[in-house]
Amino acid sequence: MTTTSERLDGPSPLPPTPKVDLPENRSFRLKNRFLGRTLHTDQLQHERLSNTVGLAVFSSDALSSTAYASEEIMLTLLTAGLGINAFGYVLPITLAMVIVLAILIVSYRQTIKAYPSAGGAYIVTKDNLGVIPAQVAGVALLTDYILTVSVSVSAGVAALYSVFHGVYPYRVELAIAFIAIIAWGNLRGVKESGKLFAIPTYAFLVAMFALIIVGLIKNFLGGGLEYVALDPEQTEALKVTGGAGLFLLLHAFASGGAAVTGVEAISNGVPAFKPPEWKNARNTLMVMGGLLGAMFIGISYLATQVHAVPTEERTVMSQVAQAIYGNGAIGHAMFIFTQAATMLILVLAANTAFADFPRLASFQAEDSFMPRQLTKRGHRLVFSNGIVSLAISAAVIVAIMSAEVSRLIPLYAVGVFTSFTLSQAGMARRHIRIKEQGWRAGLFINALGAVVTFVVTIVIGVTKFTHGAWAIIILVPILVWVVVRLNHQYETERAELHEDAERAVEAPILRRHSVMVLIDNIDRTSARAIQYARTLMPDELRAVHVAIDELHASELAREWSELPLASLPLEIRECPDRRLDRAVLQLVAEIAGDGQTEVSVLIPRRVYRSAWHKLLHDRSADTIASALADVPHANVTFVPYHLTRSAKGAHVQQVEHGAVSGTAGIHN
Amino acid sequence: MTTTSERLDGPSPLPPTPKVDLPENRSFRLKNRFLGRTLHTDQLQHERLSNTVGLAVFSSDALSSTAYASEEIMLTLLTAGLGINAFGYVLPITLAMVIVLAILIVSYRQTIKAYPSAGGAYIVTKDNLGVIPAQVAGVALLTDYILTVSVSVSAGVAALYSVFHGVYPYRVELAIAFIAIIAWGNLRGVKESGKLFAIPTYAFLVAMFALIIVGLIKNFLGGGLEYVALDPEQTEALKVTGGAGLFLLLHAFASGGAAVTGVEAISNGVPAFKPPEWKNARNTLMVMGGLLGAMFIGISYLATQVHAVPTEERTVMSQVAQAIYGNGAIGHAMFIFTQAATMLILVLAANTAFADFPRLASFQAEDSFMPRQLTKRGHRLVFSNGIVSLAISAAVIVAIMSAEVSRLIPLYAVGVFTSFTLSQAGMARRHIRIKEQGWRAGLFINALGAVVTFVVTIVIGVTKFTHGAWAIIILVPILVWVVVRLNHQYETERAELHEDAERAVEAPILRRHSVMVLIDNIDRTSARAIQYARTLMPDELRAVHVAIDELHASELAREWSELPLASLPLEIRECPDRRLDRAVLQLVAEIAGDGQTEVSVLIPRRVYRSAWHKLLHDRSADTIASALADVPHANVTFVPYHLTRSAKGAHVQQVEHGAVSGTAGIHN
Repeated sequence: MTTTSERLDGPSPLPPTPKVDLPENRSFRLKNRFLGRTLHTDQLQHERLSNTVGLAVFSSDALSSTAYASEEIMLTLLTAGLGINAFGYVLPITLAMVIVLAILIVSYRQTIKAYPSAGGAYIVTKDNLGVIPAQVAGVALLTDYILTVSVSVSAGVAALYSVFHGVYPYRVELAIAFIAIIAWGNLRGVKESGKLFAIPTYAFLVAMFALIIVGLIKNFLGGGLEYVALDPEQTEALKVTGGAGLFLLLHAFASGGAAVTGVEAISNGVPAFKPPEWKNARNTLMVMGGLLGAMFIGISYLATQVHAVPTEERTVMSQVAQAIYGNGAIGHAMFIFTQAATMLILVLAANTAFADFPRLASFQAEDSFMPRQLTKRGHRLVFSNGIVSLAISAAVIVAIMSAEVSRLIPLYAVGVFTSFTLSQAGMARRHIRIKEQGWRAGLFINALGAVVTFVVTIVIGVTKFTHGAWAIIILVPILVWVVVRLNHQYETERAELHEDAERAVEAPILRRHSVMVLIDNIDRTSARAIQYARTLMPDELRAVHVAIDELHASELAREWSELPLASLPLEIRECPDRRLDRAVLQLVAEIAGDGQTEVSVLIPRRVYRSAWHKLLHDRSADTIASALADVPHANVTFVPYHLTRSAKGAHVQQVEHGAVSGTAGIHN
Repeated sequence: MTTTSERLDGPSPLPPTPKVDLPENRSFRLKNRFLGRTLHTDQLQHERLSNTVGLAVFSSDALSSTAYASEEIMLTLLTAGLGINAFGYVLPITLAMVIVLAILIVSYRQTIKAYPSAGGAYIVTKDNLGVIPAQVAGVALLTDYILTVSVSVSAGVAALYSVFHGVYPYRVELAIAFIAIIAWGNLRGVKESGKLFAIPTYAFLVAMFALIIVGLIKNFLGGGLEYVALDPEQTEALKVTGGAGLFLLLHAFASGGAAVTGVEAISNGVPAFKPPEWKNARNTLMVMGGLLGAMFIGISYLATQVHAVPTEERTVMSQVAQAIYGNGAIGHAMFIFTQAATMLILVLAANTAFADFPRLASFQAEDSFMPRQLTKRGHRLVFSNGIVSLAISAAVIVAIMSAEVSRLIPLYAVGVFTSFTLSQAGMARRHIRIKEQGWRAGLFINALGAVVTFVVTIVIGVTKFTHGAWAIIILVPILVWVVVRLNHQYETERAELHEDAERAVEAPILRRHSVMVLIDNIDRTSARAIQYARTLMPDELRAVHVAIDELHASELAREWSELPLASLPLEIRECPDRRLDRAVLQLVAEIAGDGQTEVSVLIPRRVYRSAWHKLLHDRSADTIASALADVPHANVTFVPYHLTRSAKGAHVQQVEHGAVSGTAGIHN
């Protein structure tokens, strides 16, 4: 059966078409309200940070870790039963870690200069050591970014309940709420969130240096510092005196490693600085390193002077602040200020990870080692999918670990030191390869950095293995395997799709084109679909009704026979199992089965004004469409019919049937 | 620009196409396992119930209410501070309610005969009083079915924690679990669930009559019954003696109304009986009425004899059973059996509502007063959507009311008595209208029924108003308004769709057909879409790329210019706000804006083997398709490309380009 169609008119020169002004949809308006006005792609370069703001955005992680790093060192020593002797080891261990920090800072200055466009471990490793080592660095870092968020937010909540003890039972809910707020800030765009985070970072710096200076003055110029008031059990525990073995000291050192985890951030975020990016980033890195080292040493020193003993409900930091400021009105105000600033910077330190995780994930996704969606810039030009993934992962970990910092710390730092090692090794390799001016000095610095960080990685992995690091040591290789498989998947697919594509684009059409209109009722939706079907000028045109309800089907057949559509009989297809999609699929598979027939299945679709209307009708059209995806050469077309009362976009008469309708139609 | 296409061959007689055997999808296999083998529509009539099973399915609601109706009467009297005098009123009130029951049974015998195909209040009211009153009856009944589930399941759980007090804190979770199990049973099909429920119903009958007979024997032949052991507070409360006012008596009577709520069930379910349906249904109704009345009187009498006082953790029924059976080994076993049977029938009584709610909802949906989906028979021929809606609603109410029966009871019975009144009034009207043989007697019976139930409705509404009935009295009119609006919506839509449909089916096609292929890459997906586009022989063929990434766009443009597609230049469409759907929408609206152009938008779609693959790619195709729904005459076609490794249905070579590919192609 061949069907031809006549038109109202031959093709005619058309009048210029006006620009149609379509209303914005609701989700877009909601995004505008919730996230701010949408940004256009060409506004991308304006989203840059000054050094002052950059310090706040990229350093809050590193700086804030001084709030818990000393505590973790002390906790490791005290729980080992060293008693009062524990205090003697804290400062030396802190100094050892500050030396590692110094080496890292100097190493990363090299990296920032060498990779001004994006100098994270991932890029450096990929460039110098190859794609697979880069995935190790990338996955290790991503894991650590997630843990950064979990640890920081949990520690922030700990600072809060050190003051308000009643908050303790709600720490998980609070931590998750903070994660949500930070994610929201980041979805609005990095610059605005930079501003949002500058104040707490600087407040924290003021609070820490005030505490350290007041502490030092009281200690050396005043009458010395008083010990923290302990409960009897703790006092008893302190009386024990023991010596520390090497393993314990290394373990305590490993616990302190949390302090330097944020160093990577600036080098990974170089492009976010104002030009000249690499110089600004380098300066910010130096400032950050100095501040971090000074604070870490200061807090560790003061904590040992006041004999702070970490408990579940009171942080070391809060004990130090209370011991130094005392119980006077001004002292109490300073205590509250210190705790508030600590809480804020800790909660917001998570922001560092929110600035870096999505960027790193997008690099990996661009190399096809992560889901493609992570390369997509959202409403406000940030990598929204990355931000959301990070927030969800961190929230899950916080929930699993009950927001307890000392349960999270052992998982932490293995990943980041792995990436440090790879990144420094990569830099060393680069110096050897490129031999730029002064490369020998550079090689020495980066090789030293690589060796030191490698040793620290091993120390952390070994000493913390039984405390939870094993999970990360198992997880990272698994994730690397997953991303490598993912990459293989993408590559296979790409190869298949592109094979011979240049010739495929001129492939001749198939022998036959069969168009099938699915008919439910004789109404204007069906009429529209028939009208469109004839536009396609197929070799074969069929009208098919799948009978779910026999009564309705026979009624429909009767009505159809009275229509002036002699050349288009209605086929009734039995469907005793009421599976519409299956019946259509079977029919289409029969028609397309010869491999020489192009089948177009036309599904009439009513377009409603609102979601409420949609609710009142079932979704069988979508079910059919997705079922037909199984058949090659089955092309599903939705032919819309706009109900007039859903007038939104429907400014055009749907079915044209003017004076000539008697002369046009289907002719055999 | 006009494009024509050549074919490999002219149309040729095709070989017979083989029946393609397509694999079943996963959700279907899951349904088969979870719900049993799918039933075909022609198996519908086999799903009938014998009288014995029918009694279990349709009467468990009514019969089981004896487990709490006496308690509710006593609770109303005792909390009013009547003290020991309360016991004197229980039996008279029970008898009054049994008289109402008798009138109802006789009335419903009429209804079953007059409406053998489906004799519920909805049908009767619609047939005799009109569509709007029918909606009142329908909505009132649906509301009460939901409450039946909530009350029965909660009371069943109460019977359980009367024995195992430790279960009390988990009553909400238990109740919801029971609802889920019953819903699952019903999704498997009514006959099977009938069998499932027959045993508990008959076990309950045995337990009740054993209890009543043993109680009566001990009372009259033995030494009389002992009082229940009360705690001092309760004993003190009983010492108060007061007289009951009329309002209090009416309130107690209203509380007892819960006992007769299940009577409607059989008349609504007549078609589920074996032929002759109406006779079987009638007989079952009479048996049910007799059993219900006897049990209700028996329990009320025994409860007053043993001075049972309902408490939060022990039901009246459990006190009666304990008092009668005593503490011996056999007595204890009988007590446990009674409680177990009570719990089972109560939990399963909810099944009555699960048998009736979906059927009634489907009637209303067929009349376009409920969402169309409720008429759809599921995998096992039951109205799955109705079952699921009922389960969810009941679970929500149980959760809100903490599964406490006495908080639920005041909401209950208003609805069902409203529907009784309407149904009886409808029957009375029918006798007057039809004047069948013996119509005067029928009129008397039904008019009496209507008056009595109307009075009871008022009594319940007034006396329980402040205890929660107000919620139902407000809710029912609101729901009626909603369903009437819904109906208006459906009718308006139907009118619009059918207007002039007979002429619309021969509407001539539009002046121009423009086909647009969305291009992302030069690959085999695009090639397939271009091949299909040429099959459509459009007046205008365009290839469009929406540029999100400028680099990619210019690279694509360069590659395209090297293709042998001179007549099909690639249009690059800027999209600075990265909203792909919006850009395509704008373009299509421009083309279709003259109202004389049919636009086909071809979206190449890769078909993947598994959900895992889909996850790795974004859903922009769907976003575009749904955005284009705003434009009339914009027809979206998904052109599939099957990746070979997703070989499931892909037994056909996708793009044909054989020896002749040099001669075919696009010609201007």
